[in-house]
Amino acid sequence: MNIKVAVVGASGYTGVELLRLLVGHPQAELVCVTSRQFAGQPVARVFPSLAGRCELVFENLAAAEIAARAEVVLTALPHQAAMAVIPDLLVAGCRVVDLSADYRLRDAAVYEHWYQPHSSPQLLAEAVYGLPELFREQVRPARLVANPGCYPTSVALGLAPLLRQGLIDPDSLIIDSKSGTSGAGRGAKLGSLFCEVNEGFKAYGVAGHRHTPEIEQTLSILSGREVTVSFTPHLLPVSRGILSTCYAASRQQLSTADLVEIYRQFYADEYFVRVHPVGSLPNINQVAGSNYCDLGMVADERTGRIIVVAVIDNLVKGAAGQAVQNLNLLAGLPEQTGLEALSAFP
Amino acid sequence: MNIKVAVVGASGYTGVELLRLLVGHPQAELVCVTSRQFAGQPVARVFPSLAGRCELVFENLAAAEIAARAEVVLTALPHQAAMAVIPDLLVAGCRVVDLSADYRLRDAAVYEHWYQPHSSPQLLAEAVYGLPELFREQVRPARLVANPGCYPTSVALGLAPLLRQGLIDPDSLIIDSKSGTSGAGRGAKLGSLFCEVNEGFKAYGVAGHRHTPEIEQTLSILSGREVTVSFTPHLLPVSRGILSTCYAASRQQLSTADLVEIYRQFYADEYFVRVHPVGSLPNINQVAGSNYCDLGMVADERTGRIIVVAVIDNLVKGAAGQAVQNLNLLAGLPEQTGLEALSAFP
Amino acid sequence: MNIKVAVVGASGYTGVELLRLLVGHPQAELVCVTSRQFAGQPVARVFPSLAGRCELVFENLAAAEIAARAEVVLTALPHQAAMAVIPDLLVAGCRVVDLSADYRLRDAAVYEHWYQPHSSPQLLAEAVYGLPELFREQVRPARLVANPGCYPTSVALGLAPLLRQGLIDPDSLIIDSKSGTSGAGRGAKLGSLFCEVNEGFKAYGVAGHRHTPEIEQTLSILSGREVTVSFTPHLLPVSRGILSTCYAASRQQLSTADLVEIYRQFYADEYFVRVHPVGSLPNINQVAGSNYCDLGMVADERTGRIIVVAVIDNLVKGAAGQAVQNLNLLAGLPEQTGLEALSAFP
Amino acid sequence: MNIKVAVVGASGYTGVELLRLLVGHPQAELVCVTSRQFAGQPVARVFPSLAGRCELVFENLAAAEIAARAEVVLTALPHQAAMAVIPDLLVAGCRVVDLSADYRLRDAAVYEHWYQPHSSPQLLAEAVYGLPELFREQVRPARLVANPGCYPTSVALGLAPLLRQGLIDPDSLIIDSKSGTSGAGRGAKLGSLFCEVNEGFKAYGVAGHRHTPEIEQTLSILSGREVTVSFTPHLLPVSRGILSTCYAASRQQLSTADLVEIYRQFYADEYFVRVHPVGSLPNINQVAGSNYCDLGMVADERTGRIIVVAVIDNLVKGAAGQAVQNLNLLAGLPEQTGLEALSAFP
Repeated sequence: MNIKVAVVGASGYTGVELLRLLVGHPQAELVCVTSRQFAGQPVARVFPSLAGRCELVFENLAAAEIAARAEVVLTALPHQAAMAVIPDLLVAGCRVVDLSADYRLRDAAVYEHWYQPHSSPQLLAEAVYGLPELFREQVRPARLVANPGCYPTSVALGLAPLLRQGLIDPDSLIIDSKSGTSGAGRGAKLGSLFCEVNEGFKAYGVAGHRHTPEIEQTLSILSGREVTVSFTPHLLPVSRGILSTCYAASRQQLSTADLVEIYRQFYADEYFVRVHPVGSLPNINQVAGSNYCDLGMVADERTGRIIVVAVIDNLVKGAAGQAVQNLNLLAGLPEQTGLEALSAFP
Repeated sequence: MNIKVAVVGASGYTGVELLRLLVGHPQAELVCVTSRQFAGQPVARVFPSLAGRCELVFENLAAAEIAARAEVVLTALPHQAAMAVIPDLLVAGCRVVDLSADYRLRDAAVYEHWYQPHSSPQLLAEAVYGLPELFREQVRPARLVANPGCYPTSVALGLAPLLRQGLIDPDSLIIDSKSGTSGAGRGAKLGSLFCEVNEGFKAYGVAGHRHTPEIEQTLSILSGREVTVSFTPHLLPVSRGILSTCYAASRQQLSTADLVEIYRQFYADEYFVRVHPVGSLPNINQVAGSNYCDLGMVADERTGRIIVVAVIDNLVKGAAGQAVQNLNLLAGLPEQTGLEALSAFP
Repeated sequence: MNIKVAVVGASGYTGVELLRLLVGHPQAELVCVTSRQFAGQPVARVFPSLAGRCELVFENLAAAEIAARAEVVLTALPHQAAMAVIPDLLVAGCRVVDLSADYRLRDAAVYEHWYQPHSSPQLLAEAVYGLPELFREQVRPARLVANPGCYPTSVALGLAPLLRQGLIDPDSLIIDSKSGTSGAGRGAKLGSLFCEVNEGFKAYGVAGHRHTPEIEQTLSILSGREVTVSFTPHLLPVSRGILSTCYAASRQQLSTADLVEIYRQFYADEYFVRVHPVGSLPNINQVAGSNYCDLGMVADERTGRIIVVAVIDNLVKGAAGQAVQNLNLLAGLPEQTGLEALSAFP
Repeated sequence: MNIKVAVVGASGYTGVELLRLLVGHPQAELVCVTSRQFAGQPVARVFPSLAGRCELVFENLAAAEIAARAEVVLTALPHQAAMAVIPDLLVAGCRVVDLSADYRLRDAAVYEHWYQPHSSPQLLAEAVYGLPELFREQVRPARLVANPGCYPTSVALGLAPLLRQGLIDPDSLIIDSKSGTSGAGRGAKLGSLFCEVNEGFKAYGVAGHRHTPEIEQTLSILSGREVTVSFTPHLLPVSRGILSTCYAASRQQLSTADLVEIYRQFYADEYFVRVHPVGSLPNINQVAGSNYCDLGMVADERTGRIIVVAVIDNLVKGAAGQAVQNLNLLAGLPEQTGLEALSAFP
């Protein structure tokens, strides 16, 4: 029997990606799709890529109405809008995978420092951070899953083996990340216009991006101590993909071959993490459209630093794909169900 | 029981696309992959997008060796190279779907005028032109399927309803097509370099492109008379996608709504053809990565002309996807088996 | 002595291109720059590409204030906004080069059919259509120059030699044009977002684009009779460039070499028009950033048609560059003054 | 009187950029252009962007023949090829600006470690490192100028104020750079194909790129001590532009405003270096096509690090433009002569 799923706030790029994945999911039934902006319009008119495969119409529904139809709700709302509806969905009996930032940080004060006041801080203790490769067992029984941010996903998977095994000095961490433009959303903003982004490249949010505390929270858990990082995001003139280049001082003499072996063992049972062989590094074009996170690493003996490169598709493993992976865990399905598509290179 | 499939000449963009589709095909077993250039190298080293899902190594095999393992062979060789191996594959008992131009033209003289001497012209009468939406019944029992060219696929599907029903003057046909750069192949040529193509756009092969006779052959069959067209291809700075804008003088007073209705009826039973509503036209970004052909049409009452816009992904419906669709027909499977992926917009 | 120039409505892509050209113009002095949206902000903050070279601040000025400072005003406003200010500028004693559509059409009824009511139709008879290569002598003494549209510029220059000499049947004309995205302006619209345009391509405004009557007006003048054309614009995923592919039935037996010779003679004295040799066709990447219009042509003996390909930079020869060329004519300067920059390929 | 200039090895992207700049240079006369590959072909056939403005034909000339015509020679050859011809050019009496890596490193052993044996190590002591903003006075009288590499130019200008004033710990330097694809040259290589680069992004040469010793040499001079850095280049899917993000531990408590002020003073007299105000960071699209280096900086008080972002056009300030700037110094001309073009945004 299929699991009944609703998508709330499906008018953006993460939303259409959720619809694409759920339409092709063999054991999920997409029962309703909400959007204030497009209420009343057929999904396939708004997103012609879905024509012929999705007969739904965008609706504007209250939490109770959604809960009457769906077992699991995926919320693809902006932060602040998410926490305005999620408590009601939980009360109405749904389980929720929230793609916003609203339930990712455990400490309400940290959230309020980087975002704005939190209207349901009591849920922060219950919410599970939905990075299955690291926190799978907590996700399975959860009522509320906070789906990780795109940058934090790439960084956490890229650094987990080193931090868990204490191989680097956490205080030395510098993370230089680059994201495709779909990460900026589908809002009609000047900075997202084709002519502003095309043939361009820039850093933004330097020393102040909101994913910083989320990154630090996970790296601290992995390290067993407080970690502070330098995190610099950049905007790439591509639609999809994140590449994070992570620099850290090595605590021991390790060769690149040693590193590759450590990563291979750490991720030996993971379907969605692939480790490159020595001498080879990943490109975002090999994961675009897929739920994979590909990793490459180099030990630089001249400087004593380790460089790790992690690539994901920000809309898949960085958002909608990971949400479906979490959905699969909630539903007791194999994690890769509906997520087996490979990247269509080129 | 799965059908055993080999891919011959899988080192290019069409090749890796065939591998992607076959790896995900629920009823095909990929038994061998050949490439002279990459013989001995693991497929996943050459194409990291396939890592974790394809354990095969490129081989350099003779026809008999291939035939010993595979029931159906998909040949993704350049023209001329294809006809050097296909007769042997047929003799060895394989059925073949050939993605080159070598068996598409029925008249050897026409082939030799546009290409070079043909070494197995006797097979031209047997070869079936594998455009399932138009010639499905001939494909099913075929031993040799000539998989159509990318431009001709877009044009044939775009014009079939008008030509079959005699609604336009075939002598007036002008076809202005634009293709993504993957259509130029993976050869290391100056004209295919990023910096030559990026931020560029040009016409090429004007009044002399080799797809012209293939287009005219199909349109002549559809019209029941000889058709000569103006066909102008252009090179788009995108990886995937063909858009063909077709102009023809209307023979009757038809509104755009009439046209849409005619197309909807003509393609009512086709899984892979989607017709846009009045006032809406397709974009290549809604079919990229999928096997769909999306069509839009306008009746221009000022000029008495009909304009039809057809979009496909040149590597999928224009090559590898259509080859798998033909494979499905040969194997007696539903046509869409393994081809249900939607385009990942954006 | 330098000519004093104002730019009105300089906040868009055409505006910043005018500023770039005027900052580098050896005989123009940029005296004021207006923008409602950015009034009070330094130009170089809004457009960092101009930093260090333009100390002006955007102002919000009335016509009389502008006229008190400038001899010639370049208006880069949207249509309708332009005709709200231009009559006042003229009364105040300025000469005006208007980059909007408001004074391009000679017949107010045609304007009102394609746009909206015209508030100063009496100026249409006075306004000169500023395509210097064709109407240079009328521009020199003009008080009001209507700077041509981007598509119409490419088409008029591409077809003028054929129409003036009666070499083609005007009723057969089909024009398939493709434009870079800067042509859609700097407004924050969904359809102009990077992720909507990137890796995409589509036709738009089919059989209804507002440049159609402007194209027909010029082609009719060139032909000496009424001309109706099919004109289909498409949106290219590049920032700059227009390529128009023009199809017409030939009236005589002409070879490609004959055509090239006809074009070479026609444009022998033109600085900004370059004709390709036989066998070579232009790419938009060879004119981007420059004021050139490059032309290539083929006689297709199989179909009796002539195909002409014209490329320009839509922001330069299709807008700001042509406006400066007109400014030079008004000021009695050599036409290429300040416009000699070559395209920076790649 | 104009200075007579030759360009040797002008068939690549740096070559065509030199030609573009020299064609527009008011006091340079381009007297000959050599290329083995294109010898005998008109420059404007190979590079249509130059049509109408360059009547030269590519030649294959010996050093003595070049020296008979030119006073200054700009060599745009690959490393190793450059040192095969430059000693002869010097002997024949020319002054040379070499755009290759052959004379950039002062220590022949370092060169031979990263490249291959050096055939004229005796010239290394004479060669002047041609970064005018830092070494202007040495360039003026030089006979042989080693034009800096693209990455090293961005890094040296980005870090000079901090290192000269001892504001950072040089051992903490991490440089994460991203370059457009023209930096990979015009050779027909698989990795430079449009479909490999488009929608892709990757690191390359991690911990082993040949620009590392050049960067370290300049930073060591600026610091007055040996500096070792982590340098990671990445390949951007754009034609032009380098952005280097530089991380260093601050030695004092400085605000971002302090930093901006330090940079503004340091570069107060430099035409080609522009410093962003607090809160604003540069984009490569504001310098593409120009000789500017734009800088932005942030003091991160949380981590005690300084982050500096430097952008240049790799083909202009990173190659051909800087070579012309050096040519101007050799010729006693104002440095910006022929280099005043602004970036054509968008």
